Amino acid sequence: MQSFEYYSPTEVIFGKNTEEKTADKIKKYGGTRVLVLYGGGSVVKSGLLERIEQNLKKENIPYKILGGVRPNPHLGFAKSGVEQAISFGADFILAVGGGSVIDTAKGIAHGVANPDTDIWDFWIEEKQVEKSLPVGVVLTISAAGSETSDSAVLHNEDTGAKIGMTTDFNRPRFAIMNPELTFTLPKFQVACGIVDIMMHTLDRYFTLTENNQITDEIAEGLLRVVIENGRIAMENPSDYNAMSELMWCGSISHNGLTGLGAATDFAPHQLGHELSGKFDIAHGASLSVMWGAWAKYCYNEKPKRFVRFAEKVWNIENNGIDDEIAITAIDKTTSYFKSIDMPICFTDLGIGIQNDEMLRELARRCSFFGKRTIGQFKVLNEEDMYQIYKLANI
Amino acid sequence: MQSFEYYSPTEVIFGKNTEEKTADKIKKYGGTRVLVLYGGGSVVKSGLLERIEQNLKKENIPYKILGGVRPNPHLGFAKSGVEQAISFGADFILAVGGGSVIDTAKGIAHGVANPDTDIWDFWIEEKQVEKSLPVGVVLTISAAGSETSDSAVLHNEDTGAKIGMTTDFNRPRFAIMNPELTFTLPKFQVACGIVDIMMHTLDRYFTLTENNQITDEIAEGLLRVVIENGRIAMENPSDYNAMSELMWCGSISHNGLTGLGAATDFAPHQLGHELSGKFDIAHGASLSVMWGAWAKYCYNEKPKRFVRFAEKVWNIENNGIDDEIAITAIDKTTSYFKSIDMPICFTDLGIGIQNDEMLRELARRCSFFGKRTIGQFKVLNEEDMYQIYKLANI
Repeated sequence: MQSFEYYSPTEVIFGKNTEEKTADKIKKYGGTRVLVLYGGGSVVKSGLLERIEQNLKKENIPYKILGGVRPNPHLGFAKSGVEQAISFGADFILAVGGGSVIDTAKGIAHGVANPDTDIWDFWIEEKQVEKSLPVGVVLTISAAGSETSDSAVLHNEDTGAKIGMTTDFNRPRFAIMNPELTFTLPKFQVACGIVDIMMHTLDRYFTLTENNQITDEIAEGLLRVVIENGRIAMENPSDYNAMSELMWCGSISHNGLTGLGAATDFAPHQLGHELSGKFDIAHGASLSVMWGAWAKYCYNEKPKRFVRFAEKVWNIENNGIDDEIAITAIDKTTSYFKSIDMPICFTDLGIGIQNDEMLRELARRCSFFGKRTIGQFKVLNEEDMYQIYKLANI
Repeated sequence: MQSFEYYSPTEVIFGKNTEEKTADKIKKYGGTRVLVLYGGGSVVKSGLLERIEQNLKKENIPYKILGGVRPNPHLGFAKSGVEQAISFGADFILAVGGGSVIDTAKGIAHGVANPDTDIWDFWIEEKQVEKSLPVGVVLTISAAGSETSDSAVLHNEDTGAKIGMTTDFNRPRFAIMNPELTFTLPKFQVACGIVDIMMHTLDRYFTLTENNQITDEIAEGLLRVVIENGRIAMENPSDYNAMSELMWCGSISHNGLTGLGAATDFAPHQLGHELSGKFDIAHGASLSVMWGAWAKYCYNEKPKRFVRFAEKVWNIENNGIDDEIAITAIDKTTSYFKSIDMPICFTDLGIGIQNDEMLRELARRCSFFGKRTIGQFKVLNEEDMYQIYKLANI
């Protein structure tokens, strides 16, 4: 087991009707004037936003509502949120939604606490976050894990860059998680969430680090549970047990727990971010497309790791031929993605790329124009990235 | 999955030489004058205490050292610690040791922050902790999990009562966990730790709650890892990997994670506390003695749960005869305890009880003189407790 630091201070309140505790928790963490952030109209239609407003009113907490956060959340929107939060005098940001809303809330919180800083500077590592406002979450989508994670992704619509930034100041103070709030999600979003949850663990699980037993056990158990309950959730998104498992797995898949003590990879995430940024593709879909290509290109670095994955996660019998078992496990995984109606190649995305130069361009951008490598399981340079995009371009 | 709340804010710093970060972390959490608490002479002999003193001196943090915490930590000692911390003007308590030292530090922290309250009132639930001092930990024994848990046990030497008290104010701010610090432990303490870690999960795992998949997976994975690495650690307590697995499992076994979403039991802990209080028996030894008797008395409440335990943890083949499999799993578990030289009955403890009245007395005290039941898997009254003590009295 390698050395690690683990810090996951978010208070989780999990179960039916837990959104009724929103105002209580805001007060507990010092909020007195709240910017309430949401995305599309679903939280309006479902009545959730109104219930939260009533809850805030009952406790006499002044609030201002700001809707309209988009998927692949835009930097420009976050910046305008900072201005509105400051002019309202907000001292607490409440995110009602999924990853994009939560990540935008984190960006706004950093901006309000650092009014003289362009928040993008935090994302491009020009500056470090040293103070922020408290953020609370009422979660409506099991996927990103942002409700307890230290990361936030923003998309700079001017440069096309989509970057994830990690800091402990990104950890929300509390996360209210009522699985019933996810019952009305469109199936595509449920499926995107399933992929995202699996990928947060897979991108940690594929590592060259040996002897990391309890972390491996947690990762493998989580993958088995998500695979099984993902199938049930796609059949019946109102299955409380299945949606509960997905919701809690979503959090622990991205709070650090499934990768402690090992080097983590995250190359598929980086490859996917570039694709999402370029074609405005849902995050989960970018991951289901990139993972199979990444795995086929990289498994040879350490086939035994894929053999363990095959045995523990997919219950594939070990016939002693490592390469064969590894490929079977990769195929099982992409077939699973396909079975929940997720794309696994560019054609499935409707962006079959005829132009080789476009693949080169994706690799150039993903490598920061040749300035960075990505991944740990196999360190990938620009040429490797190109080859992987090419493998996905079927 | 039942509703739950989960809050585990302790910052974990895990790996070799991490004790060098002690002063940094104390400052991070606002400490300026520190009471350093330890138990026996082992931290003196090993040089750890001196290294920590040097670390504090380097950062100009004034401190006062207080040694002598005993196993089954005494209320009287904690009270005198409160006095000394107040007269020194401590605003931070640093525990260097295992569960007893950490629990005493928690008690002292509550006492300093509430100088007009008898701290025992918090333990007997006469009063609620509403403020406390920050506590940090340098862990030297993998066992109690107190370094990240919300609980603390104190032993009132006047009344003989040994009581665990839970509050979020019991959560340490940070836990420094260097597995190398556990290399010099006597084997009996290593073995007690293994049992304690397993029992923190077993006492959560045996529940009537159905459909709690990710929590069950984490619990079962943890038990497999502790059983395997416990064997290695008993052979070679300097095996860094094995001691790492035990150390991290010790924390997550008692920070809540392995029982979320289900009713928990903890009857064996209560039965063991009574035994420890009466005969001054090591906590781990009280648990290895009580668990088998508890399991044999209670498994019939839901044999299928023991069948799952048999299959997942002990890899026992399911022959379809539930009772037989359950008993085999119980015997496997107690045989494992025995294999690491832990007692599994009163005779092993050297306290074979001839006098039936003594068994009745244990049950009377454990039931608070008939005023409480314990357990959830099977709710146990005074008569049940007597029957279990009787089963252990072989």
